[in-house]
Amino acid sequence: MSYQFDDDTRVREIETGRFTAELSSRWLVGPALSGGYTMVVALRAVAASLPHPDPLSVTGHFLGPLAPGPADIVTQVVKRGRTVSSGQASVSQDGRERLRLVSLFGELADDPTPLLMDGGPPDLPRPEDCVGNEPGVRNGFGVPMGDEFLYRVPPEDGGMIVGRPSGEASARAWVRLADGRDPDLLALVAIVDALPPVIWEIGVSGWVPTLELTAHLRAHPAPGWLRAVARTRFVQGTLFEEDAEVWDERGRLVAQSRQLALTPG
Amino acid sequence: MSYQFDDDTRVREIETGRFTAELSSRWLVGPALSGGYTMVVALRAVAASLPHPDPLSVTGHFLGPLAPGPADIVTQVVKRGRTVSSGQASVSQDGRERLRLVSLFGELADDPTPLLMDGGPPDLPRPEDCVGNEPGVRNGFGVPMGDEFLYRVPPEDGGMIVGRPSGEASARAWVRLADGRDPDLLALVAIVDALPPVIWEIGVSGWVPTLELTAHLRAHPAPGWLRAVARTRFVQGTLFEEDAEVWDERGRLVAQSRQLALTPG
Repeated sequence: MSYQFDDDTRVREIETGRFTAELSSRWLVGPALSGGYTMVVALRAVAASLPHPDPLSVTGHFLGPLAPGPADIVTQVVKRGRTVSSGQASVSQDGRERLRLVSLFGELADDPTPLLMDGGPPDLPRPEDCVGNEPGVRNGFGVPMGDEFLYRVPPEDGGMIVGRPSGEASARAWVRLADGRDPDLLALVAIVDALPPVIWEIGVSGWVPTLELTAHLRAHPAPGWLRAVARTRFVQGTLFEEDAEVWDERGRLVAQSRQLALTPG
Repeated sequence: MSYQFDDDTRVREIETGRFTAELSSRWLVGPALSGGYTMVVALRAVAASLPHPDPLSVTGHFLGPLAPGPADIVTQVVKRGRTVSSGQASVSQDGRERLRLVSLFGELADDPTPLLMDGGPPDLPRPEDCVGNEPGVRNGFGVPMGDEFLYRVPPEDGGMIVGRPSGEASARAWVRLADGRDPDLLALVAIVDALPPVIWEIGVSGWVPTLELTAHLRAHPAPGWLRAVARTRFVQGTLFEEDAEVWDERGRLVAQSRQLALTPG
């Protein structure tokens, strides 16, 4: 059986280090495709040529908007090491590179021991006591990508997920893929970018161009719902960061991310 | 007049996109050179071929230890855009790549307006009311790199800067280059990595191999002292992150960084 997420992120190897993909309009966020989604596509191409199974760190430079349709991917093995490997990918459309991705791979322990945890998952009532979208029912922030996830937020929180800016530059939610696929490291790269930009919560609207996104994958996620929290602390001039953390059902930190973005307009 | 920092990070272009550098033993941290220092060297090579003046985001993958002595740098222009450019560098010794760096360049406003600031510089008494090292007097954590900076910490804080682990996985300090050079964006890439690994503050010792470091440059720093704060929140299995913020004398956030590292041993 094949999930929508796997179909939408599939890459086909043409020759060694050259791939094609068919990017799906389901992952549009305004005028371009979700950065996290396009990073997953590029990462699948990189993974194909590296000996280690698990992405530990992945960085994307967004050089131009990626649109639905065919894309060309060229990969390079940067290093094949004993404990870690590194590879990169260039994703192009119409002969122009739109995304440069570098990723470091290794092998994560099945259930890494928490040795120091200064913080924990966001405090959320159980998903069944929260509000959110349903498969095929348009999400509150009105972009196609929002339908590829299920979101659950506390009724009192508000937030763009339910179509009401919260007034705080942060958000917390249960999240999972809407197609029923359980999360894995690859899906986490989309999930760190799944919440609406938290800058929208403070009255800013419009397309938020991400310049760079780095995600660290910290543990294999357990099946089921994930808890995500996102926050923007510093908007200076036209630049701001957005940080996200993702926690699994066991209470393990499974991903951390930071993106550098431009304020809309 | 030339500063030590500029001498130690100089690159010489051999032909288009090929450089050499002489890495200095002054920047050793245990068995290898400081990651931040080697990133500055690579970044100078990348900057030479990009039209935009200011690094906004820079990511390094540390593929093997870099040692004092000659290094070869190969650069590639990833994109020359209207508002941003992107480039990468490979730094090799003895024919083996040890550092892969990607960086996004643009142009920062002279003094970007703080629009949302959820947090501020670390609370520190003035440098003259703090304790620390002096030029040529060995720093408290006993690695050559520590002598390339001046550090000032509140007497009550302790910490590895003054040779006493604080017991907390965080540190705050005034910091500047010991050679008297004022900070700029390039120097900030070394300064985000200037504090002793905060994991040393909680009784862990030994060489801390960084896998990846990403720094965001958020504003041109004002001349003078900088305030740096570093923190590790999550150690899971063998992986942990270290986050740093750097603030200038005006109270502007000038850099943010996160690294993913392996626990010693």
